[in-house]
Amino acid sequence: MDMWLKEGQISDAAMTYKIKETLVTKKTDYQDLAIVDTYSFGRMLLLDGIVQTTIKDEYVYHEMIAHIPLFTHPNPKKVLVVGGGDGGAIREVLKHPSVEKAVLCEIDKEVVNECKRFLPEISCALENPKCEVFIGDGIKYVHEHKNEFDVIIVDSTDPFGAAEGLFGGSFYKEIFDCLTSDGIFIAQTETPFYLPEVVKRVYNDAKAVFPITKLFMAGIPTYPSGFWSFTVGSKKHDPQIVDLSNTINIDTKYYTKELHKACFVLPKFIEDLTK
Amino acid sequence: MDMWLKEGQISDAAMTYKIKETLVTKKTDYQDLAIVDTYSFGRMLLLDGIVQTTIKDEYVYHEMIAHIPLFTHPNPKKVLVVGGGDGGAIREVLKHPSVEKAVLCEIDKEVVNECKRFLPEISCALENPKCEVFIGDGIKYVHEHKNEFDVIIVDSTDPFGAAEGLFGGSFYKEIFDCLTSDGIFIAQTETPFYLPEVVKRVYNDAKAVFPITKLFMAGIPTYPSGFWSFTVGSKKHDPQIVDLSNTINIDTKYYTKELHKACFVLPKFIEDLTK
Repeated sequence: MDMWLKEGQISDAAMTYKIKETLVTKKTDYQDLAIVDTYSFGRMLLLDGIVQTTIKDEYVYHEMIAHIPLFTHPNPKKVLVVGGGDGGAIREVLKHPSVEKAVLCEIDKEVVNECKRFLPEISCALENPKCEVFIGDGIKYVHEHKNEFDVIIVDSTDPFGAAEGLFGGSFYKEIFDCLTSDGIFIAQTETPFYLPEVVKRVYNDAKAVFPITKLFMAGIPTYPSGFWSFTVGSKKHDPQIVDLSNTINIDTKYYTKELHKACFVLPKFIEDLTK
Repeated sequence: MDMWLKEGQISDAAMTYKIKETLVTKKTDYQDLAIVDTYSFGRMLLLDGIVQTTIKDEYVYHEMIAHIPLFTHPNPKKVLVVGGGDGGAIREVLKHPSVEKAVLCEIDKEVVNECKRFLPEISCALENPKCEVFIGDGIKYVHEHKNEFDVIIVDSTDPFGAAEGLFGGSFYKEIFDCLTSDGIFIAQTETPFYLPEVVKRVYNDAKAVFPITKLFMAGIPTYPSGFWSFTVGSKKHDPQIVDLSNTINIDTKYYTKELHKACFVLPKFIEDLTK
């Protein structure tokens, strides 16, 4: 019997994946969680039926959301990841030896638990002594910590339902205050092919708060359209013109120092969304 | 009743599209042809069950396959498109006023006929007096024309079955001879996420023939993985370091002069395929 999973995000077009095995499905306090093993992308985490990460292509998202801000900041010591309970962003953050402490603030403890159980390649760094896992509300956590983090990574689900509060101006103002004086913020900000109005709104919300705001793209096969946007808000350091000549070399599969700058050069219809 | 089309290319992962209407299906001398109207991407051409082009995202592919070589060549007058019976590449080619003649060499007359009928936004330029439509075998056409074209665009289906001969060293040698002394060749060369060995082989085949060989990427939602490669082979002009400051401005939705260079900066795993 062939079993196929149909992803739920885009109503009139959807990716489907042939399934080897369903490893876990459960209703948590916040969402429906599933981890399945697929033929094409290996084990895959789904929340409310939407693919969050897969063994085969997770490196793109996690490398780009971590290394762009961490190589832009000259000396990142304290990093906060809001969401990201799979641990992939933390794993990449901790490749930077300057980092002394990386806090993961995830609202759903079941995401952390099940990713530790079934996705150890991604969640491994959550056991690192430099990592503190805090189970709680990211909005509250950011509000209660001022002038504390050099980099804040918002590694959230989509801006519908549970994660809606993690997108938009009022949260970005709190993020700004939670950052140190030359701090940098980054968030995943959806695909401009399917959701141009979301990309535009979120970019403008960030731009209203941060002196430097830039959008970049990366190719991620298991996210809708395969071409995904990230928005960076920075108090002082411009991610596109930073000097990378003396930064350390780290082991990556997608990120390179040359791509760090080139990924900010946008196709015209996406550039237009930032004007 | 909901009707969904499941695309056939990648066996264990597939895009599905909700269908409004099937406009035509027929068996031609070369392949199964279908044009359907979808909710998410508008009208869509399929050959042997694989999406070739859609109204909503065709601009990415057609702009990038035409403008990269045509803006790299200082004065392209004569252009050949092998395949590309939908006419989209020709439409973009003819935005360059230097072009005096654009030949479309398509083996399957039904592709041209049905695209004229159902995809006029894409096929419109096939009626342009500068365009000559030749129905015949691209390999034979290229063999019979020497030192004639400034730019050759190989706008083919995938390298399995009918179009297999349009990929690889022996055809690229013929292309080389068909080009003028500073001619440029470009081909669509699949996705490095699903078919890294094809990308690597085709790149190396082109590199064995052309003094300058470069690969670039573009985001195309209806092609597998959403992130697609193109390979450029050039006798003299390097597409990545060409001076674009005096080129004309044309109306595009994806291509920009800045992106012309940035798109050649590759993610590490793709760069590794070119080494």
